[in-house]
Amino acid sequence: MRTVGIIGLGLIGGSMAIDLKKRGFAGKVLGVEADKVAAQAAMTMGLADEIVSLEDCVDRSDIIVLAVPVGAAVKMLPEILDRIKEKKIVIDVCSTKEHICASVKYHPARKQFVCTHPMAGTEYSGPWAAQPGLFDGRACIFADQEESAPWAVQDILELYSCLNMRPIFMSSSSHDVHTAYVSHISHVTSFALALTVLDKEKDEKHIFDLASGGFSSTVRLAKSNADMWIPILTQNHNNVLQVMDTYIEKMQQFREAVASYDEDALRKLIEDANKIKRIIR
Amino acid sequence: MRTVGIIGLGLIGGSMAIDLKKRGFAGKVLGVEADKVAAQAAMTMGLADEIVSLEDCVDRSDIIVLAVPVGAAVKMLPEILDRIKEKKIVIDVCSTKEHICASVKYHPARKQFVCTHPMAGTEYSGPWAAQPGLFDGRACIFADQEESAPWAVQDILELYSCLNMRPIFMSSSSHDVHTAYVSHISHVTSFALALTVLDKEKDEKHIFDLASGGFSSTVRLAKSNADMWIPILTQNHNNVLQVMDTYIEKMQQFREAVASYDEDALRKLIEDANKIKRIIR
Repeated sequence: MRTVGIIGLGLIGGSMAIDLKKRGFAGKVLGVEADKVAAQAAMTMGLADEIVSLEDCVDRSDIIVLAVPVGAAVKMLPEILDRIKEKKIVIDVCSTKEHICASVKYHPARKQFVCTHPMAGTEYSGPWAAQPGLFDGRACIFADQEESAPWAVQDILELYSCLNMRPIFMSSSSHDVHTAYVSHISHVTSFALALTVLDKEKDEKHIFDLASGGFSSTVRLAKSNADMWIPILTQNHNNVLQVMDTYIEKMQQFREAVASYDEDALRKLIEDANKIKRIIR
Repeated sequence: MRTVGIIGLGLIGGSMAIDLKKRGFAGKVLGVEADKVAAQAAMTMGLADEIVSLEDCVDRSDIIVLAVPVGAAVKMLPEILDRIKEKKIVIDVCSTKEHICASVKYHPARKQFVCTHPMAGTEYSGPWAAQPGLFDGRACIFADQEESAPWAVQDILELYSCLNMRPIFMSSSSHDVHTAYVSHISHVTSFALALTVLDKEKDEKHIFDLASGGFSSTVRLAKSNADMWIPILTQNHNNVLQVMDTYIEKMQQFREAVASYDEDALRKLIEDANKIKRIIR
């Protein structure tokens, strides 16, 4: 059975560790965790069999999962490929893809890297956020898979099949466009909502009491971590700005309709928005 | 045991009907439902014991629950108070309070009206959206309760206690400010998010595939009904505009930080937004 090395035992890395081990894909899980408290917690929680150094992890693992924020991942990936032996594979799980693919485009070991983005998560982070079944039934994007060796892609398809994910193939640039349009904008609007409510509503008790009127689900993503989201928003700068501009435009249209008591315009905006029902539950 | 009349057997009225009957607060539930299909569905689902006319409902019920969109409620409430007999009570469950309170401010039967807003719901509507336990553990706002007779308030406190709601008392104008700041703005940002994603992302399959990256929970409220939300947004016009303006400002600040790759500004914005964690789960 395979030894899987996981660099970064946070929400994603830790959750992968749980299911890959429990479901028999990994015989052994080696963990790399720079934060000492997180490393100890991960061991206490049984996320990894051993905490090892980065070098040990690269040397001893059959598959290496790079599960750190995308800023750090872009720096670490070339170093891992410098050291990796034949027949071993490294994957990343980052939320932006163009930068990380560019960072190893001409690397001689590029074929041993498979670029993936499992579309699952919660607003929490750290090993204490790891949970079984996090990935079940979700989509996993494989970006630029033609740049990887077919045997490596096949092995990683099996890894995600063990996590009950369905694969979707697209280029790294398409990935960054589509995630900006759907996922990244949702985080930005949620951050802005939290800032607004905290600014306008000085009484925290009112926020708590009224949160069940829809606020709590809409603002959920505003709990997301700055270390993860700053590099996503800056690396995916152009796509994120584009979709933010469209969003601000829509808000302005909504504002005008409210300001002028224009019930027809409001009906059109709301009913157009309702079309999202046809796509997602 | 009391006879409870429910005008409007939708999500809120229907869900109240289920629990008030099941938990023994109501011996009989009389339903008024203008929409014939909804009325038949409500009977098939057992939400009401009888479907009756508005007049019958007012004459035969001990407590009348006005559970229609706020535009219709403002028109119906004075007519109900015109007809209501002594010792009977009418309550509304609308999401804005100033207009409905103003509509009966000098009505001779004002004391028999208790103005409430149970803070619970889903993005679905109609009798088919009704569910048991919808209100459990949530807050219910009593607005301008000093305008109602104490015996009437007491009876309605018991009604909401049966629904496992905790009462909160405030003026109708405070209610409209605070719901705008917390609940109404969440709906507007969600509508705008749906409009944005449907505009930018032409491929519905991508929306579906990427929705688990947080989009689905953030956009949930965008499925909400235009008939319900148009009167809320126009009746609560001033408060809603104020909070929308603050929201647009926050989005602009976020946009500037992304546009200028200003990581410090982004960190401050995200960490300020994260403070919402201290208030709601």
